[in-house]
Amino acid sequence: MRVLKKTIRLKIRFSEVDAMRIVWHGAYAKYLEDAREAFGSEFQLGYDLIAENGFYAPLVDFSIQYKQPLRYGMCPEITIVYKATEAAKIVFEYEIRNPEDNSLMTTGRSVQVFMDGDYQLVWSTPEFYEEWKKRWGQSST
Amino acid sequence: MRVLKKTIRLKIRFSEVDAMRIVWHGAYAKYLEDAREAFGSEFQLGYDLIAENGFYAPLVDFSIQYKQPLRYGMCPEITIVYKATEAAKIVFEYEIRNPEDNSLMTTGRSVQVFMDGDYQLVWSTPEFYEEWKKRWGQSST
Amino acid sequence: MRVLKKTIRLKIRFSEVDAMRIVWHGAYAKYLEDAREAFGSEFQLGYDLIAENGFYAPLVDFSIQYKQPLRYGMCPEITIVYKATEAAKIVFEYEIRNPEDNSLMTTGRSVQVFMDGDYQLVWSTPEFYEEWKKRWGQSST
Amino acid sequence: MRVLKKTIRLKIRFSEVDAMRIVWHGAYAKYLEDAREAFGSEFQLGYDLIAENGFYAPLVDFSIQYKQPLRYGMCPEITIVYKATEAAKIVFEYEIRNPEDNSLMTTGRSVQVFMDGDYQLVWSTPEFYEEWKKRWGQSST
Repeated sequence: MRVLKKTIRLKIRFSEVDAMRIVWHGAYAKYLEDAREAFGSEFQLGYDLIAENGFYAPLVDFSIQYKQPLRYGMCPEITIVYKATEAAKIVFEYEIRNPEDNSLMTTGRSVQVFMDGDYQLVWSTPEFYEEWKKRWGQSST
Repeated sequence: MRVLKKTIRLKIRFSEVDAMRIVWHGAYAKYLEDAREAFGSEFQLGYDLIAENGFYAPLVDFSIQYKQPLRYGMCPEITIVYKATEAAKIVFEYEIRNPEDNSLMTTGRSVQVFMDGDYQLVWSTPEFYEEWKKRWGQSST
Repeated sequence: MRVLKKTIRLKIRFSEVDAMRIVWHGAYAKYLEDAREAFGSEFQLGYDLIAENGFYAPLVDFSIQYKQPLRYGMCPEITIVYKATEAAKIVFEYEIRNPEDNSLMTTGRSVQVFMDGDYQLVWSTPEFYEEWKKRWGQSST
Repeated sequence: MRVLKKTIRLKIRFSEVDAMRIVWHGAYAKYLEDAREAFGSEFQLGYDLIAENGFYAPLVDFSIQYKQPLRYGMCPEITIVYKATEAAKIVFEYEIRNPEDNSLMTTGRSVQVFMDGDYQLVWSTPEFYEEWKKRWGQSST
């Protein structure tokens, strides 16, 4: 199966650094969001497409492992990888690396489900997402 | 004219403190928002009422003067004061004080206008807001 | 072993709600932080104590399961529970519940380690933390 | 006097959009910060230089005028302009424009002062800043 992934460069903002002079752990949610947006833009799976089809795709699971602290002035890279699944979910894994020595700084994972306009969970895979999977070679059927 | 105001206590979060070990200037927007929400709750002028009447009330002007830095561990107080105006606007002024010596830490001001559901600016005062003003003694008519 | 836990009420800010009209997943990091600060205040394990002893306690692992969306206007409660461990770590588990029907909205977990002033990982439990554990009945030795 | 300015493109994040489906007013502080960092990088006036010289440069005045709302999907441009002043201050003005029709979306202004390592306000212009001004043709002396 084709591996869909995208790497972007992050810029650490002064305001993201806390009194320990490292990036505050909560700021990473924005980095992972940036990676998802870049992925959605590259592979046409953005919020707009999901919304146009009448769905929301909220996160239901989110985890991060902070292996080495990020500091102000660093320009790390984040790679987002799409993980194919049979379930009606969008699953991504993330890696943040320091491009200077390719050392692994952070890993993460997010799971999104689909909700309809009434915020009811959608158990079966929406048609537009099934088509997206086929188009990008991520469907097992 | 009756002065409508409300004071609440703020709690400085560790994550709001930057590498200078003072509260990051952008974090104050949340403090002023907390004050507006407390005001809205006390004087029945919350986002819900505005939305129920078919309007948005986005900020169009926002300014803060940082007179003394806030630090982690401080429990300052913020006071929000409603400023009556003839225009179709909601104007608030803010003061953050250190209750230990009543010293003035921060001042601020926000101006909100009304937009209809199509994001068009509403030039005349919405009826529900005119009623609100009368009810709370803020109307000059 | 005595269970150390603390429950506080959360207030959902308008700015924490996203275009899906539910709380943005990244905003929960602040809720969990609020719970840690309340715990630290109640059981004397705050950032200040850790800093006074020459350590940082950055998060190295963070995960959240979003079971039901939080919406603007809700006043949910968050409970933080200290999980005793032999390792030189501070481990907390979290639950956010809707007090109206006690339904479980969110679960989470955070792991903090100790770093010295040079940002080097500390493998053995710092003395002040060992003492803290004994004082609060969390030590197995 | 030479005009020092820098323009960068902004990317609106989904998480920066509020329930009104426009960018939350408090999110602009990050946009202006991005502009300051880009300016500091281009004209060598970053936080690092200031810190190396033993100073902090906190904001003491900050104001924004929101003329037209920013929406998700927009790629506006922000221009930061350095405003020369005799005082021991760093003053910037900002403009956010929609590059599609060059319409003005937002204006802003920030004032920074210098504090020494003990958080005491510095009234006279620090030497390194005086030199910076001369180097970039911003000094009247």
